[in-house]
Amino acid sequence: MANEWRTYLRDHYETHVDELKEYLRIPSISALPDHDSDVRSAADWVANKLRAAGFPHVEMIETERNPIVFAHWHVDDSQPTAMIYGHYDVQPPDPLELWESPPFEPTVRDGRLYARGASDDKGNSYATVKAIEALHATEGKPPINVKVFFEGEEEIGSPSMGPVIRDNKDKLSCDFIISADGGMHSADQPSVTLSSKGMAACQVNLKTAATDLHSGLHGANVPNAVQSLVKLASSFHDESHRVAIDGFYDRVRELSDQDRADIAAVPYDEDGYKQSVGASELKGEAGYTPNERAWVRPTLDINGFWGGFQGEGVKTVTPNEAHLKITCRLVPDQEPEEIVELINAHCQKHCPVGASVSVERFPGQARPFSISRDHPALKTAMDVLEDMYDKDVFVTRVGGTVPVAELFQRVLGSDMVFFSWGLPDNGMHAPNESYRLVDFERMREGYCRYLHALAR
Amino acid sequence: MANEWRTYLRDHYETHVDELKEYLRIPSISALPDHDSDVRSAADWVANKLRAAGFPHVEMIETERNPIVFAHWHVDDSQPTAMIYGHYDVQPPDPLELWESPPFEPTVRDGRLYARGASDDKGNSYATVKAIEALHATEGKPPINVKVFFEGEEEIGSPSMGPVIRDNKDKLSCDFIISADGGMHSADQPSVTLSSKGMAACQVNLKTAATDLHSGLHGANVPNAVQSLVKLASSFHDESHRVAIDGFYDRVRELSDQDRADIAAVPYDEDGYKQSVGASELKGEAGYTPNERAWVRPTLDINGFWGGFQGEGVKTVTPNEAHLKITCRLVPDQEPEEIVELINAHCQKHCPVGASVSVERFPGQARPFSISRDHPALKTAMDVLEDMYDKDVFVTRVGGTVPVAELFQRVLGSDMVFFSWGLPDNGMHAPNESYRLVDFERMREGYCRYLHALAR
Repeated sequence: MANEWRTYLRDHYETHVDELKEYLRIPSISALPDHDSDVRSAADWVANKLRAAGFPHVEMIETERNPIVFAHWHVDDSQPTAMIYGHYDVQPPDPLELWESPPFEPTVRDGRLYARGASDDKGNSYATVKAIEALHATEGKPPINVKVFFEGEEEIGSPSMGPVIRDNKDKLSCDFIISADGGMHSADQPSVTLSSKGMAACQVNLKTAATDLHSGLHGANVPNAVQSLVKLASSFHDESHRVAIDGFYDRVRELSDQDRADIAAVPYDEDGYKQSVGASELKGEAGYTPNERAWVRPTLDINGFWGGFQGEGVKTVTPNEAHLKITCRLVPDQEPEEIVELINAHCQKHCPVGASVSVERFPGQARPFSISRDHPALKTAMDVLEDMYDKDVFVTRVGGTVPVAELFQRVLGSDMVFFSWGLPDNGMHAPNESYRLVDFERMREGYCRYLHALAR
Repeated sequence: MANEWRTYLRDHYETHVDELKEYLRIPSISALPDHDSDVRSAADWVANKLRAAGFPHVEMIETERNPIVFAHWHVDDSQPTAMIYGHYDVQPPDPLELWESPPFEPTVRDGRLYARGASDDKGNSYATVKAIEALHATEGKPPINVKVFFEGEEEIGSPSMGPVIRDNKDKLSCDFIISADGGMHSADQPSVTLSSKGMAACQVNLKTAATDLHSGLHGANVPNAVQSLVKLASSFHDESHRVAIDGFYDRVRELSDQDRADIAAVPYDEDGYKQSVGASELKGEAGYTPNERAWVRPTLDINGFWGGFQGEGVKTVTPNEAHLKITCRLVPDQEPEEIVELINAHCQKHCPVGASVSVERFPGQARPFSISRDHPALKTAMDVLEDMYDKDVFVTRVGGTVPVAELFQRVLGSDMVFFSWGLPDNGMHAPNESYRLVDFERMREGYCRYLHALAR
């Protein structure tokens, strides 16, 4: 039977690539209101393709902005239900002048398909539709129950996701989620992802006087707001680059030996990395390797700092206000709201003499996400990948934030398995985004294999 | 004889005020090129008044921009030569809408003459011309040799002063300078000024990576430029608010008991001061009073700091660059160039791991100025003031920078005595600048008395 879907995929390769190109020609840029109708067109387009792939139920779940394309194919009560997650919206393409071929005219060069969204996420998510189509054409139906959830706001921070998931709990219920938005470690190295970090974001505002002051008349006596905020900010980390906010690590899970071993198994090229970012030295929390820091240890980053005179030349001013922005990347079981409280408590406790400080919390807080190393659907994904590549599968994590993974987990009680073929060098969110056609093939094959492997 | 000039001044009070109004109607704004001809008109106007006051020699010393109005009246080889310093240019008047009467239509209200330049420095400098006129009219000549040096670039930082003084050393030679640009401690409290601070200015630029980076991918390992500069900047001062740059205080003269006593004799209202600047607490170098810090102790001020994201909301960036600006206020015998070298050495020595730092020096460095407490011309000024007010004279200093005082001292070897009637609440450089007419009277009288007292 496996041979049949394989043959089908081989026979329809050109057609599927042509369809993907058609999909990529729709400039469904969610960040730009001028493209609202394109976003809607992309939703309609992929909904029709889901119908054509055999899904008996396809609907639009409307939101405040862009609809969720939802599909459901119930095949057997005794089988698990997987919900495939992806998105049909794309990033803006600017700067346009850096594209070698136009972003919405898909072009193949050297085995790569170049277009905005080629990898993130139209290429990856559309491969899943084609896998179901192949199973439908050759076996009549998928081997397990499948739901599809393609959103249209991923590139603008998924503002509708919380309400939509809460309002449609029953409709969306499933045993686990498979994310078609994600990536592999590298071109020929399969990997699975155990976790992504949460986020807490705030701004610290400090004030010392009513106005900027003449430094000659007042600088010797009136507290300088920039110097006060520098002093406060210098207390955020200790000498070993640990975050020095009281309680910051209280809920952080200790790394297990398995975690350390998984992470150590992923090769790390420090010199190559330093060169890629233009850094002369790396710096981070003592006692952890670079990948441990990036993947499983929480951080506090000052994203920006400003105060006083920033123009050309000299202005002899003693600034009365200064500001900084913080984002923290969180790991289980840190809570974003609590972290902002701890930062506020720290700022009040360490507020320099003669200054007043306020901490402004931002929306967009996100909890960290993680899936158990022993989750059956994850183990199955690893088996499939090992079989496809004939290689050990790396167990990696994501230093970035995937709020939707934690939302699904919290509201639906369903864990997310990342099973997708984005690559670090695909230029996502950048000019000349591309997708290796071999990855499109692997992803179609991978989903056919994976859905079979998940069947009881 | 004293009675005669006094009677003359009384008889010509109205005329002198009318002349001052005429002077104030010329919008001699040096900062605005549109007013170049007005600046020139003001120079011509005051040159003619110097001739009318009896000066046998009056000339324009041309510069790259605005001329020096120079006059000389040699009366007696056995008498000292004083050079009166002032300026005929004024600040721009904006914001215009805040003026209660137009800035170049002098208006008297409640004993004050309102106009741009009324105090700074047309009112004060013109009073000296009227004093000489009175001495000429009643005694035939001033009691000592007098030179006059009125510049036209004071409000734009006196860029021509260095070359002009160096190129005209002989012409400008004198025993001491009397500055008609300066002020008294308060309305009914005479004071003299012993020193003004110098200035060193630079910018510190720090870099850690080639570009801003995604904080989720890189924040845990790549040094954050803002955090690195925060750490460096937090090393500029120690816990007692002393500047912690190695060598910063090496050349600083210790305060004498006389210095401490002079400064302690000037009343200081800490609560009133805090209220005036909107500060809840004062902060400054431990071991010194507020006036000691402001007047005789050097400072290092961060005037501005910027790096990373400063817009609305959240941007999860690890900044690769950060910058700050410094001005130091210097006291004798600190050297601006050396101070910038020390700052650079400190920044290199304390440069955080993974960062590179450069220190950019700015033009506009100025040496500190001071005059000896025992300078005969200063002592004479104090005697005159004590006699006029029947009060002890405060011995004060200036926390700001008066580069011209140090320039005259260094190039000509002549010290400057500030003898002028500006008041802190005259609104200099602000809307509704004014000058108390009683101070115009006092200044005319003061110069007649002072020139007599200086005669051997």
